[in-house]
Amino acid sequence: MPNSLDEARYMLALANRMVAYEGVLDGFGHISMRHPGDPSRYLLARSRSPELIEPSDILKFTLDSKLLTPGDLLPYGECVIHGEIYKARPDVNAVCHHHSAAILPFCITGVDLQPMFGLGAVMGGTVPFWDSRDEFGDTPMVLTTPEHGASLARALGPHWMVLMRRHGATVVGREIKETVFRSIHTHRNAELQLRSASLGQISPLSKGEAEMAGSYSLRERPMGRAWEYWTTRLSKAGELPPRP
Amino acid sequence: MPNSLDEARYMLALANRMVAYEGVLDGFGHISMRHPGDPSRYLLARSRSPELIEPSDILKFTLDSKLLTPGDLLPYGECVIHGEIYKARPDVNAVCHHHSAAILPFCITGVDLQPMFGLGAVMGGTVPFWDSRDEFGDTPMVLTTPEHGASLARALGPHWMVLMRRHGATVVGREIKETVFRSIHTHRNAELQLRSASLGQISPLSKGEAEMAGSYSLRERPMGRAWEYWTTRLSKAGELPPRP
Amino acid sequence: MPNSLDEARYMLALANRMVAYEGVLDGFGHISMRHPGDPSRYLLARSRSPELIEPSDILKFTLDSKLLTPGDLLPYGECVIHGEIYKARPDVNAVCHHHSAAILPFCITGVDLQPMFGLGAVMGGTVPFWDSRDEFGDTPMVLTTPEHGASLARALGPHWMVLMRRHGATVVGREIKETVFRSIHTHRNAELQLRSASLGQISPLSKGEAEMAGSYSLRERPMGRAWEYWTTRLSKAGELPPRP
Amino acid sequence: MPNSLDEARYMLALANRMVAYEGVLDGFGHISMRHPGDPSRYLLARSRSPELIEPSDILKFTLDSKLLTPGDLLPYGECVIHGEIYKARPDVNAVCHHHSAAILPFCITGVDLQPMFGLGAVMGGTVPFWDSRDEFGDTPMVLTTPEHGASLARALGPHWMVLMRRHGATVVGREIKETVFRSIHTHRNAELQLRSASLGQISPLSKGEAEMAGSYSLRERPMGRAWEYWTTRLSKAGELPPRP
Repeated sequence: MPNSLDEARYMLALANRMVAYEGVLDGFGHISMRHPGDPSRYLLARSRSPELIEPSDILKFTLDSKLLTPGDLLPYGECVIHGEIYKARPDVNAVCHHHSAAILPFCITGVDLQPMFGLGAVMGGTVPFWDSRDEFGDTPMVLTTPEHGASLARALGPHWMVLMRRHGATVVGREIKETVFRSIHTHRNAELQLRSASLGQISPLSKGEAEMAGSYSLRERPMGRAWEYWTTRLSKAGELPPRP
Repeated sequence: MPNSLDEARYMLALANRMVAYEGVLDGFGHISMRHPGDPSRYLLARSRSPELIEPSDILKFTLDSKLLTPGDLLPYGECVIHGEIYKARPDVNAVCHHHSAAILPFCITGVDLQPMFGLGAVMGGTVPFWDSRDEFGDTPMVLTTPEHGASLARALGPHWMVLMRRHGATVVGREIKETVFRSIHTHRNAELQLRSASLGQISPLSKGEAEMAGSYSLRERPMGRAWEYWTTRLSKAGELPPRP
Repeated sequence: MPNSLDEARYMLALANRMVAYEGVLDGFGHISMRHPGDPSRYLLARSRSPELIEPSDILKFTLDSKLLTPGDLLPYGECVIHGEIYKARPDVNAVCHHHSAAILPFCITGVDLQPMFGLGAVMGGTVPFWDSRDEFGDTPMVLTTPEHGASLARALGPHWMVLMRRHGATVVGREIKETVFRSIHTHRNAELQLRSASLGQISPLSKGEAEMAGSYSLRERPMGRAWEYWTTRLSKAGELPPRP
Repeated sequence: MPNSLDEARYMLALANRMVAYEGVLDGFGHISMRHPGDPSRYLLARSRSPELIEPSDILKFTLDSKLLTPGDLLPYGECVIHGEIYKARPDVNAVCHHHSAAILPFCITGVDLQPMFGLGAVMGGTVPFWDSRDEFGDTPMVLTTPEHGASLARALGPHWMVLMRRHGATVVGREIKETVFRSIHTHRNAELQLRSASLGQISPLSKGEAEMAGSYSLRERPMGRAWEYWTTRLSKAGELPPRP
């Protein structure tokens, strides 16, 4: 299915640029998706900053993060994050790993991320923490072995987002648009929580509100509206990826 | 009066883009106006992000939020906010609903918004809170029924702005320029209050100052100057809506 | 001296745009200069947002703020701020009145502005407060009579900047480049003081350091470097005023 | 070696613009590099704002900061910072002096800068403070004599960054790309530390993590990826320096 794979490569380049343009990714961080025609493979760009990625930068990996694409393009050192999560979570088809300036204060202080408003509820009912020190002691703060990735996948469990102490976040979704939507709106929720905590006592959504608002926000209409919005913003800035 | 309706559509598209460009609206939120030739109708865009709206996106509704425009363009799920306020407030001719990053910390903490400077006084003497939980218990944090809209309109009462707990704000005015002016300057006032509260003890305008400053700011000259300013900024950014 | 007046008009339009582009002025606020050929007159734009001002918008006033330029261009309501300061301070040749988001938290809380770094020392040794309530009770928070302006000028005294409670700031200088330099760097100093105060105990420049650093910063070389920098930024953004 | 010197001039102009574009340098501050063909000389721009620098602005100095380039281009008053550090640290080949809005709150409060995440660990194990008042009493807060520069170099010692009380920071590296990388990522680390401290109790990298993460981040691949990213951002903004 070459057409479908071409489209997947374009979508993935687009998603990388979109999440970078909205301020979640910067020079580092990455988004992957499961191969549309083969669930035992995933697609992830070569080691390059997200806002520069082109469809021709997209590489193919096994779920053990063995690079299958021939040539000399170098993969990200942290590709195991993606492979191990796809292995552990058959329902997940797109993964974003980032170090946003809104999320990192939670990773640095250990303060729980909570849903502040309807769109923020897409974080899911629980956002667990993972600390590389618990299993691996001192590390260079990068996940480079399958064991690292598997440990993170265990911490993620059945949830949609995991905060990594002194490191960043990993966000997953059933498909690429959902992962983009969740990455951007949880980033915005974190910014709101940070600002609100400096003003007074925060009052998050109730558990019932969070469940209902999370489901409501992930319907086709709000996700489609946001996708059109972010694509148009990229387009107006002249930042759409080149067509293959 | 087709010319007048055409002009209303253009003004409404312009107002949406203006309030988005100035940072109050983002991918979500919306502004409506009462139909210029028929006070029992209102105009509101189809479900689309504010900064993308074109005159041809503008739909017509009854005050019961029944869509009158033929075709298959989908309305916002929350159009009842607009209809129920127009029903309850004959003096109101434009409504903005938003979730700005400056206003939300007040909605999240319950801290009262107060006038910090002259332009901020356009919020009016009282800014009430509305909490969907009081009447409706757990909801997906969206107002989708006439009952939701009517409850919000009761909380708004005779005032010019209502804060919605864990949700956002709804701002009204006698005409579209006033609603835009109030939406942008109360957003800016909120940002100032948040920043000031982190520095020391805030000292808001007195009641007398707020009344006088509010009236002064809503005169033709400052509103006209601001309208020219915001229009020119949109124009320089290439973001004016297309002419119908 | 028509050439010199033309040049003054251009410089003043440029200064307005520069201070707006650097984030000190927004839709409101204004900069004036004393007439280069007649110290009993001053130049100030018609009522228009600073980043839009063109040389042809510049009007001429007596020091009693009587408009001398024929035609129907409307002056700012607050032109008396400028006239009364020129009257009281023969050494002052340019005045900027603004409501910047960095300075306003000091006007709202009454916290003293202090020099945080060398360039911030251009605020001068003392930055007095003025409160319109002291002499005038409740007002609409605008200075519209000569008495208002004269009261502010008395509060300014021999200093270079005065903070106006719940209102903004007025900054003066011996010439237009100095007023621009002082307006932008005191704005930046305020932002740094606000951020620092949220981190720990601030430690401002000593009195001796502030005096020496203030003088050093106002020499030709740093002021010229900054002027080239701000002009080039305006130029790259396509925001230079049109030549008359 | 004229070609190599031309290339060095271009690289240095590029580095100045890059660090300015990423928000670390503004109208003031500067980056130098050791002369590629003669370790007893260094290269530094004439007194001009960093984002405007062109290859033809680059001047040559002895390590005693004696200007060798003929002509009438004026050097920065603070060139001694560079010369004295090159003299004291043969391993250092590029120096950046700046006053970023993220770093200054630490210089103003005396709060220690600590590594918040992997990339921030490039600050090195210790970031010492230097206070001009200790040796020189009240000064205009600029380093203009060789004694000032030598004092700062002693405070820097064997480290990679020194915070200057009420002034700014000086960052060094083995080569220009390392100095740029360290300047930008320590700036970002400072911003994260400031934001995190307002949210809760910060938990920095352990000593072992910091050492490992610092080394990991300074390898060719992450530094190359960042260099491509920052260069492309400059290029898209039309801000690359002119080729000589």
